[in-house]
Amino acid sequence: MPGNVLGERFVVVSFGESHGRCVGVVIDGCPAGLPLSEEDVQPLLDLRRPGQSAISTPRKEEDRVEILSGVFRGRTTGAPIAMVVWNRDVDSRSYERLLETPRPGHADYFASVKYGGFNDHRGGGRFSGRITAGFVMAGAVALKLLKATLGIEVMAYVKQVGDVIAPDLPIDAIRERRYSNEVRCPDEESARRMVEVIREARASGDSVGSLVECVAVNVPQGLGEPVFSSLDSDLARALFSIPAVKGVEFGKGFGVVRSRGSENNDPLTLMDGRVVPKTNNAGGIVGGLSTGREIVVRIAFKPPASISKPQRTLNLATMREEEVVVTGRHDPVIGPRAVPVVESVVAVVLADHAIRAGLIPPVLRGTDPRP
Amino acid sequence: MPGNVLGERFVVVSFGESHGRCVGVVIDGCPAGLPLSEEDVQPLLDLRRPGQSAISTPRKEEDRVEILSGVFRGRTTGAPIAMVVWNRDVDSRSYERLLETPRPGHADYFASVKYGGFNDHRGGGRFSGRITAGFVMAGAVALKLLKATLGIEVMAYVKQVGDVIAPDLPIDAIRERRYSNEVRCPDEESARRMVEVIREARASGDSVGSLVECVAVNVPQGLGEPVFSSLDSDLARALFSIPAVKGVEFGKGFGVVRSRGSENNDPLTLMDGRVVPKTNNAGGIVGGLSTGREIVVRIAFKPPASISKPQRTLNLATMREEEVVVTGRHDPVIGPRAVPVVESVVAVVLADHAIRAGLIPPVLRGTDPRP
Amino acid sequence: MPGNVLGERFVVVSFGESHGRCVGVVIDGCPAGLPLSEEDVQPLLDLRRPGQSAISTPRKEEDRVEILSGVFRGRTTGAPIAMVVWNRDVDSRSYERLLETPRPGHADYFASVKYGGFNDHRGGGRFSGRITAGFVMAGAVALKLLKATLGIEVMAYVKQVGDVIAPDLPIDAIRERRYSNEVRCPDEESARRMVEVIREARASGDSVGSLVECVAVNVPQGLGEPVFSSLDSDLARALFSIPAVKGVEFGKGFGVVRSRGSENNDPLTLMDGRVVPKTNNAGGIVGGLSTGREIVVRIAFKPPASISKPQRTLNLATMREEEVVVTGRHDPVIGPRAVPVVESVVAVVLADHAIRAGLIPPVLRGTDPRP
Amino acid sequence: MPGNVLGERFVVVSFGESHGRCVGVVIDGCPAGLPLSEEDVQPLLDLRRPGQSAISTPRKEEDRVEILSGVFRGRTTGAPIAMVVWNRDVDSRSYERLLETPRPGHADYFASVKYGGFNDHRGGGRFSGRITAGFVMAGAVALKLLKATLGIEVMAYVKQVGDVIAPDLPIDAIRERRYSNEVRCPDEESARRMVEVIREARASGDSVGSLVECVAVNVPQGLGEPVFSSLDSDLARALFSIPAVKGVEFGKGFGVVRSRGSENNDPLTLMDGRVVPKTNNAGGIVGGLSTGREIVVRIAFKPPASISKPQRTLNLATMREEEVVVTGRHDPVIGPRAVPVVESVVAVVLADHAIRAGLIPPVLRGTDPRP
Repeated sequence: MPGNVLGERFVVVSFGESHGRCVGVVIDGCPAGLPLSEEDVQPLLDLRRPGQSAISTPRKEEDRVEILSGVFRGRTTGAPIAMVVWNRDVDSRSYERLLETPRPGHADYFASVKYGGFNDHRGGGRFSGRITAGFVMAGAVALKLLKATLGIEVMAYVKQVGDVIAPDLPIDAIRERRYSNEVRCPDEESARRMVEVIREARASGDSVGSLVECVAVNVPQGLGEPVFSSLDSDLARALFSIPAVKGVEFGKGFGVVRSRGSENNDPLTLMDGRVVPKTNNAGGIVGGLSTGREIVVRIAFKPPASISKPQRTLNLATMREEEVVVTGRHDPVIGPRAVPVVESVVAVVLADHAIRAGLIPPVLRGTDPRP
Repeated sequence: MPGNVLGERFVVVSFGESHGRCVGVVIDGCPAGLPLSEEDVQPLLDLRRPGQSAISTPRKEEDRVEILSGVFRGRTTGAPIAMVVWNRDVDSRSYERLLETPRPGHADYFASVKYGGFNDHRGGGRFSGRITAGFVMAGAVALKLLKATLGIEVMAYVKQVGDVIAPDLPIDAIRERRYSNEVRCPDEESARRMVEVIREARASGDSVGSLVECVAVNVPQGLGEPVFSSLDSDLARALFSIPAVKGVEFGKGFGVVRSRGSENNDPLTLMDGRVVPKTNNAGGIVGGLSTGREIVVRIAFKPPASISKPQRTLNLATMREEEVVVTGRHDPVIGPRAVPVVESVVAVVLADHAIRAGLIPPVLRGTDPRP
Repeated sequence: MPGNVLGERFVVVSFGESHGRCVGVVIDGCPAGLPLSEEDVQPLLDLRRPGQSAISTPRKEEDRVEILSGVFRGRTTGAPIAMVVWNRDVDSRSYERLLETPRPGHADYFASVKYGGFNDHRGGGRFSGRITAGFVMAGAVALKLLKATLGIEVMAYVKQVGDVIAPDLPIDAIRERRYSNEVRCPDEESARRMVEVIREARASGDSVGSLVECVAVNVPQGLGEPVFSSLDSDLARALFSIPAVKGVEFGKGFGVVRSRGSENNDPLTLMDGRVVPKTNNAGGIVGGLSTGREIVVRIAFKPPASISKPQRTLNLATMREEEVVVTGRHDPVIGPRAVPVVESVVAVVLADHAIRAGLIPPVLRGTDPRP
Repeated sequence: MPGNVLGERFVVVSFGESHGRCVGVVIDGCPAGLPLSEEDVQPLLDLRRPGQSAISTPRKEEDRVEILSGVFRGRTTGAPIAMVVWNRDVDSRSYERLLETPRPGHADYFASVKYGGFNDHRGGGRFSGRITAGFVMAGAVALKLLKATLGIEVMAYVKQVGDVIAPDLPIDAIRERRYSNEVRCPDEESARRMVEVIREARASGDSVGSLVECVAVNVPQGLGEPVFSSLDSDLARALFSIPAVKGVEFGKGFGVVRSRGSENNDPLTLMDGRVVPKTNNAGGIVGGLSTGREIVVRIAFKPPASISKPQRTLNLATMREEEVVVTGRHDPVIGPRAVPVVESVVAVVLADHAIRAGLIPPVLRGTDPRP
């Protein structure tokens, strides 16, 4: 597969560009019988939508999902589910100039090398964060499927922006409060300080990095395929597909480097009648298999490359360095808008693995096919 | 694919168990015409071999590679290359007891849940670090292929053990000195201190975490496929397949969270006639594409789960917690022996991508097929 | 992959239903730089369109292709190409009744078993010949790509309808005359007799079987991957994906059973400076590899299952056999409308293999990216 | 995948050469808990073994299977199952000469074009029928799995040799008598005449074509994935991977071309409490899905290309046509030895689809993991 296809049994195909006609997705392999309509997809898409707050890009997109296939009488049919959002508020004026002076930190130049200049560079084209709207449409279906069949929930939130780190919170607080503010941090005090940092960065024509933590609960034990499709392998692969991700870690993550085995090992215990690790340093995955504890993964997002501060870059016509000022409409931080994207990507991988493991059947019986 | 298969065009199939008859690998898709014999594979395998120093397991395995297919008259034929090492020094006595009291931090219990108890648990079976001998056999071929066709080199080394961090070193030092000591750290002073930490941990019946950094040089610009097979996605997937990996980061990695766009962006410049990023915060990958700068990836290894210190675990027969002492032969740290494994895995992914991109042709012409 | 995805490097994803909103396709892996617009796709789609003659279904569909992504400034970008035709003339009234009395020869009942009754049964849903509109959109791109890069042409025509067999014709006649009549047979006299047979069948409320032959010329030698992706394997797989195909044969095909090696073997000779088989009993493929001679494949299409003659079937409500009369709008023969579909499917497989073999590069340089 | 890999969930990887060290296979995805030992595989392998009768090649190979991995305590573990047979009776002397004068009807020349002359040409290398020993090892496992879980049986036999066609026989006769004679035709009278034809061909230094029919019973309804992985698509793909196959047809096959819908349609009826087609013109597959009736597929094998009669071919050194006499040890007909190969390939595809459909679980519980 050339790369726009993810998964084995719950397969996601991504298409569309930032400034083209649409952004879309096809899901192949969704079980039949899942109640589904645009109303199931739109709310998550709305959480990703630009132009919603002072800390995101002012680009205005309605992002109304249209389901083109695979649903009949309000239920999935087992056929591929194609979905699109149409691009409306496209302003490509500022991008022509950037062909000559590629924006530092962007893929523009390397994409043009790879595709011989034929790539659609407007708004970053395929390399734009906008294509994650497709991930979210697929994610909304995966989330609904996981919840309906296995009771799995996937919840992400912003854990850190710059130097501001949110304290650890119980799952319930994350579930209820993660979308309660524009920065998507369930701890209000941290959220307030994060907003400050973001505003400050934007005010100085700059951007700031962020960390998203994602927790998946009720994941059955033993999920994960061997070796190259271990659960952490497949999650990491999918997460690094989100633009701007520079690091992925599970559980204690990079913290294990300084630890001793005697403190890092999670001993088994009996909890609610199940044998599970008492502590969760492993982040819910050992040997590539889920342990029955919550899966905990953290994702580092770089500060957005588009900043209004003047920057040095190379003018490809003159082959001299010069100053460039990137205009256009951009986010000063990625984490907050990435929260629904991370949830989506994690859900897609879990749905794929649950189907592979035979935990979700090809047909969700028990609902009446002809309502 | 169920998970023992990696790649699209340079495909690696892993098989074998820790205490079974052998550990092996099949490579499908290696171009024809590459000079290859056991002598090309053995040296890297020797670097991974157990029983070589005071800081590794005393298990003695000769690990002599045998090429079973795909090579004719000293050159690859384009047919699948099957390779094995036979297991010799197998001592499974200590493992029966562990079925009842699963070792903390190991996959034993979760594997038994997944496979209904049918999995070969001896020595960890498929979940043992020993299966990485197969990765290394494949890696040796990939490394030779990359060097011969594109001049790409892949070099890993131990960057950190516990609190001991090696200073940044020039590529040349890494190339020449990374295998010069048992801890595989090219900085001798750091290496000496790392060995101390490891010995101390072992002496107290414990183990310690480690960090491996891997650098790939001469990677052509624009390598990487779109979105879900971006270069970082595929590298991360493969790296998380190595047992005990808990985190993967590129370039500045998790350091981006605290950074500003203005400092993190790598401006373009002209270097040796090519347009490349002047700095390399991105670790050689932007938008999933290689930038022409060295690829820099860091991998966090947890301390080995097997320690001789008494630990609490659950007795599955009595369902009571009790103390377990893990005997058997084990490494007190993973990083040093993982160095050739990391190089192998990175090389396999780069070879796959180079073939996908048409940069390595299906036949290496220019050598005489009938020497 | 669940089955709606074909290919490795030129990947086709099919979606849409007969009576849903649309029929569509995504191509992932088309090289960048191919001039492409709706005008390149529409003509082939028109040749497949229903309602064009007395021997095809009266369903009227404009079938105007819309390219949704992957094309910029008149050229492919290397990104996925999504294309749709919208369904307009949908009349699902007659299909409700068929849920109770499944049409003989149709997939209706078996699909309902597989999908638990959740499948969209209207007009056959995913099992309708209408989804081949997606194959044709992909095929038009593949045909253009093959012609532009390697000079490959793919030409199918109706070789037989019922007992009427067209004589062998030179390639030039096939190229020029295959679309010159409604039955898509380049031999006018045979075409006339075929039309008679078809009309006769329709007049008696019946349908008739047909045979399509497809010839691909200028296919370079050695195309085809080993064993399970041999050229004939992949062509056969794709051809059996066309609804109603019951047999596929290459060259002399089933005729080999009665032949002797001494007559069936194609000796090598020198032709136009190339070493190729003098005769072409093999149909251009030996050992799964193209020989340099034209590829010749024949495909048997059953008579359409939908006939207006009364037929016996089971009433699923009463579980008694009864008479059913299938109304709706249907073709009395499949071959003629399948001709562009066969060309498309063969072209898609050849394009995929040519890219796998490195014969078509990822970027078609030599055209200016910014016209 | 480059082509030596087949399947999605029951994955078969083929390796080895005719005159190399071994022929082997890896199965990835076999469920855990299936009782398995060499004794389960050897009998089918024996049926394929050369040197068994006057109508097969005199090459003597013991073909003793060795299971290298994936089995523990007599049961599959869920890990990859690697199996090999070692090549013993290799005589490559006659093959050097053929490099200059390629054998008519063989892949030798085209393989050498594709692989730049690096391919192992001895005995046909990867293009030899000998690699089907690997298919049979995988097939034996698939057959056992299908029988143990779903009661599916797969039975092939020689239906035709030259002009001799065996009459239709009941399933029971096929089951019991197909391996009762050297020509693998359950009808003794036909078998006798087929042997005559084969002897006659051999006596005149020639070879003869053959037709194998394969029947699969107890296949559950609705097996088959959509469109490109329809059951007939995947079966055809796998069958065309067997060397020398030139045609594949299901049910009435090419006979449909002359038929009318009213006679070809299989009406539904109630049989043993299930709704199934009353007749089986469709060969058990409609719309790519199994109908519940026996699957019937016929495969045309060309006469073996290796004949001792003098033939014309091109001398690649002189570029002149000359006479060549192919020595070496060869079969005069393919069908009889292909019978277990066809059964194997069909079983592998059915096992893959049954797992994809969730009809065979990842773990076969109900047997005790520790006997």
